[in-house]
Amino acid sequence: MMAPQYAPSLRTSLPVLAILLETVFVLLFAFFVSYDVVSSRPNELFYYTYADFQDVHVMVFLGFGFLATFLVRYGFSSSGFNLLIAVMAVQWATLLNGFFFSVKNEKIHINLKSLITANLCAASALISMGCVLGKTNPVQLLLMGLIEVTGFVLNQWIIHYFLGGDQVNIIMQLCLFGACFGVTLSWSLYRPGLETRHEKERSTLVLNLFCMMGTLFLWMFWPSFNSVLTEDTTKKMNAVFSTYFSLAASTVTTFGCSVLTSKKGKINVYHIHNATLAGGVAVGAAVTVIPEPWIAMTIGVIAGLISTLGLKYIKPHMKFAFDVHDTCGVLYVFGLPGIMGFVASIILQLVAATNLLVVLKDVVFQLTALSVTLTISLTLGMITGFLLKLNIWKPTQDKKCFDDQAFWEFPHLVMEL
Amino acid sequence: MMAPQYAPSLRTSLPVLAILLETVFVLLFAFFVSYDVVSSRPNELFYYTYADFQDVHVMVFLGFGFLATFLVRYGFSSSGFNLLIAVMAVQWATLLNGFFFSVKNEKIHINLKSLITANLCAASALISMGCVLGKTNPVQLLLMGLIEVTGFVLNQWIIHYFLGGDQVNIIMQLCLFGACFGVTLSWSLYRPGLETRHEKERSTLVLNLFCMMGTLFLWMFWPSFNSVLTEDTTKKMNAVFSTYFSLAASTVTTFGCSVLTSKKGKINVYHIHNATLAGGVAVGAAVTVIPEPWIAMTIGVIAGLISTLGLKYIKPHMKFAFDVHDTCGVLYVFGLPGIMGFVASIILQLVAATNLLVVLKDVVFQLTALSVTLTISLTLGMITGFLLKLNIWKPTQDKKCFDDQAFWEFPHLVMEL
Amino acid sequence: MMAPQYAPSLRTSLPVLAILLETVFVLLFAFFVSYDVVSSRPNELFYYTYADFQDVHVMVFLGFGFLATFLVRYGFSSSGFNLLIAVMAVQWATLLNGFFFSVKNEKIHINLKSLITANLCAASALISMGCVLGKTNPVQLLLMGLIEVTGFVLNQWIIHYFLGGDQVNIIMQLCLFGACFGVTLSWSLYRPGLETRHEKERSTLVLNLFCMMGTLFLWMFWPSFNSVLTEDTTKKMNAVFSTYFSLAASTVTTFGCSVLTSKKGKINVYHIHNATLAGGVAVGAAVTVIPEPWIAMTIGVIAGLISTLGLKYIKPHMKFAFDVHDTCGVLYVFGLPGIMGFVASIILQLVAATNLLVVLKDVVFQLTALSVTLTISLTLGMITGFLLKLNIWKPTQDKKCFDDQAFWEFPHLVMEL
Repeated sequence: MMAPQYAPSLRTSLPVLAILLETVFVLLFAFFVSYDVVSSRPNELFYYTYADFQDVHVMVFLGFGFLATFLVRYGFSSSGFNLLIAVMAVQWATLLNGFFFSVKNEKIHINLKSLITANLCAASALISMGCVLGKTNPVQLLLMGLIEVTGFVLNQWIIHYFLGGDQVNIIMQLCLFGACFGVTLSWSLYRPGLETRHEKERSTLVLNLFCMMGTLFLWMFWPSFNSVLTEDTTKKMNAVFSTYFSLAASTVTTFGCSVLTSKKGKINVYHIHNATLAGGVAVGAAVTVIPEPWIAMTIGVIAGLISTLGLKYIKPHMKFAFDVHDTCGVLYVFGLPGIMGFVASIILQLVAATNLLVVLKDVVFQLTALSVTLTISLTLGMITGFLLKLNIWKPTQDKKCFDDQAFWEFPHLVMEL
Repeated sequence: MMAPQYAPSLRTSLPVLAILLETVFVLLFAFFVSYDVVSSRPNELFYYTYADFQDVHVMVFLGFGFLATFLVRYGFSSSGFNLLIAVMAVQWATLLNGFFFSVKNEKIHINLKSLITANLCAASALISMGCVLGKTNPVQLLLMGLIEVTGFVLNQWIIHYFLGGDQVNIIMQLCLFGACFGVTLSWSLYRPGLETRHEKERSTLVLNLFCMMGTLFLWMFWPSFNSVLTEDTTKKMNAVFSTYFSLAASTVTTFGCSVLTSKKGKINVYHIHNATLAGGVAVGAAVTVIPEPWIAMTIGVIAGLISTLGLKYIKPHMKFAFDVHDTCGVLYVFGLPGIMGFVASIILQLVAATNLLVVLKDVVFQLTALSVTLTISLTLGMITGFLLKLNIWKPTQDKKCFDDQAFWEFPHLVMEL
Repeated sequence: MMAPQYAPSLRTSLPVLAILLETVFVLLFAFFVSYDVVSSRPNELFYYTYADFQDVHVMVFLGFGFLATFLVRYGFSSSGFNLLIAVMAVQWATLLNGFFFSVKNEKIHINLKSLITANLCAASALISMGCVLGKTNPVQLLLMGLIEVTGFVLNQWIIHYFLGGDQVNIIMQLCLFGACFGVTLSWSLYRPGLETRHEKERSTLVLNLFCMMGTLFLWMFWPSFNSVLTEDTTKKMNAVFSTYFSLAASTVTTFGCSVLTSKKGKINVYHIHNATLAGGVAVGAAVTVIPEPWIAMTIGVIAGLISTLGLKYIKPHMKFAFDVHDTCGVLYVFGLPGIMGFVASIILQLVAATNLLVVLKDVVFQLTALSVTLTISLTLGMITGFLLKLNIWKPTQDKKCFDDQAFWEFPHLVMEL
């Protein structure tokens, strides 16, 4: 049988799924969700300000959206699907967070904190999306987003209720969960037909500038990202400063390391787009326990190093050795730096310990929580991958991967420019 | 007589108009405007924060500027004229709002509220501009901007003083006034020579990404737009949340509906750029009376539906049946969703009524106010169109429409890229 | 000897310098810098808000980064080196400001004010960078950045301690210092080989849109820039409003003046990108002494005029008459408008004087401070230029100037788009 000339039409599946989901969301919101009365929580606007929320909001919709626009024929899918998955994930996460964490027999209240948390859950799904971008259709991405968010919230709940600890660091969790879920998802979805580099998996100068814009928006607002849920003013400001200086250090390191590992002594544009963010990821895992700015900078240096070296030396081998094709290099930007930050946070807590027993107990809790997170995310990613492989989702054929034309209509487009 | 080879030079008209206007502005400001003393209004900074103002400011100058950059040879005029018209409109609106609404015998005070209001008036003019973009020169656009802002402020004043009501919803008014003014303006300026699609009325992949950036900035900050003039904290936050979830719902609907109405089952990029914003427009008209998030979402779904279907089925016919060539589809993004939001707001008020008589009186007031707005905007747009048609403004000839080269000098430009 | 075919490799020099600098920074931070305890300064968060800081942060990293992306083959170096130099300058400025201005025998405290000041110092270095962009490699730019920041902080310290005055206007200082340093630096680095216009010193339509984006971000947030260090609420808001209306006036003037000076009566895109900002620069020098909005607007009109005329008539002659090749036209955007604003500020103080003697004393102090700034910046720029000319920095050969390919590796790039 000959391969079909066009990508499978989404005319039935996407509208049905989209409208069904939105109807379910409206119904669930009608029964379970209401607005919060701010006066009942006088400190709400002080702790979680609208400006902080806006920074995170810009990161999720603009930053992640444009970070992935580098593919030569995939600019629209990158930014457009990012928007679609993000709005779905935010609505779903608002519901799930309410069901799992709200007071019983009370309506779920929407307030700045719930909206910020929902945006963080969406960020987790968008990180996973980076692994499979170009190789999935929007229906598959929507399903992935829903499952990822469900898994992420469930994971938070398990840690909270079964391990009985305080709320663990959601920033670290979302980076790790998203990256691990994405990597095994990508492994499940591996296609031998894409083994050699796809002809459309390339970039252009101009698209790289859009990607640089996405990177800069993530980079500039990462201090808000890492500090947005911290309530104590001094701790919040220290989280901002730690992130700021860690990002600065990882940026300098990335420039140096990128040149050093290049035979021609040139800077790899791909490293600058990605590894410069590693400092923000790594420090996010340790943000509450960093006592001095130089420690944040040291973490940034190591994160930049790990991320650049990972992108340079590990990424190309993962494809051939482990069948993992990670489009945006998520493992090296969010995965490894996240784990490194976690280790740094453990070390910092042990060093600062006055009562070693209490700290040891806390470390054991954190290691257990980490194991739970890794287990759930890796397993769920793999299962999701097998689910998405089913033919009912009409996956795009290999030669139509990385191509906007499979999903987008461009009336009146001048193709030559 | 042969058609001239070049577009008419603006060497006399634009500088004279620009410098004359700015001189008049400086003189009027010198006599009538002064800075406010913040301490005299202790709550000013609490009610209208600088960060909220900045969001609206970014929408006006960056959002609207880049939303219209999709035309293949008109990127500069879109973003540049947006800047020019906006700065003019803000200065003029500051003066007019002062003259019409300030306390008698007192100087007009500049403060955050007056600047926010002036930006909203500018937004109204920029919406109208979207209808005639590509078919007007900057001198015509400047005149249009001044007349539109004058009409809009006059309209507010008439409603305020003659109908004796409270200040009506300025957000709804600006969307409706701008769209209606623009549509009849576009009708008056109709040129049979542009009946078939203009060869330059096309787009490119990269310009569509700039347009996507504009869309995203409007989309992300629309919650600020709808809540910026609300003073009560709880109501302000609820306006934010209503707008947020309405936008999310209209985005999902637009994706679904765009695919459903496409023969090939593909997403129309033009719908994503425009109809995703319809939820924000519609909920803006009802923002103070929405009691639950699911109602905002329902409004968003309907708005997304109306906007996508309008862009798909009504827009192409408007050109041939009614001689209206609406470059950016303003009627379907700001016009119809605005009216739909107004209807929703009336229904919500009737449903929630405890004292039906009071509510009915209010509904009659609102319907009268709407009629006044529609009458003034439609009439003024038509008159402005006939005025702008005069040869003294040296309109661009048909073949130079939609072309930056008519107005812009690009020294040292590499044309092939 | 034949000229080498490739640009000199930076494989040794850039990594060594980057990693050495970052190590020194980490060590110095370890010994001298710590986080501030916010509770010890209750007003910190009121005076210097995080949202204001973010606006300045966005200007430094995104605004300046994209303002310079107009060169056809230099988009990456423009935005990428901007990031590298900025992170270096911020770290170095944090240390220097601490060493020069902190309380003796106490650690340097990082807080919002210190981070804002460090960003302003970085802005100064980025302004200088605009003069030599395209003709320097990243190693030279790093050295330039470090020397410029050192000179700038030293200059502030000299004025503070030797002239015994209050802190002078840092906004004016940074614009003037950056521009003057850059101009003599560019003079020292003059290459006869670049006398005729370089083939790569051109632009494209799309890159000009990125540049427009950079311009708009600087333009939109300039009110935050000029007001960020003002502590009194009324003065802060007035600084915002003065800047806003001055920018509006200079934008209108630039459009008019650009058309007027064009033979064909067209708008020069280069003037819109640059001269529209002149109003913000000029008013920055006088921001604390402007009593009425119309005065800010008048300053804006004059600044727009000076800047446009400078770019049009003086810039082309500077290259041939004085051997100054100023890539981004920094002298006409930051230099001349800054001096004009300084003069305006002196006049305003003399006019408003109630006690002429006190004011005269203050004027003499300001003129002395200005002389010191001009002397230090012009001299240091020249010396830095001669230092950077040394062959150990491996300057790029003439034909590799203005070319990303000298420094950047683009794996998998489609060159034709």
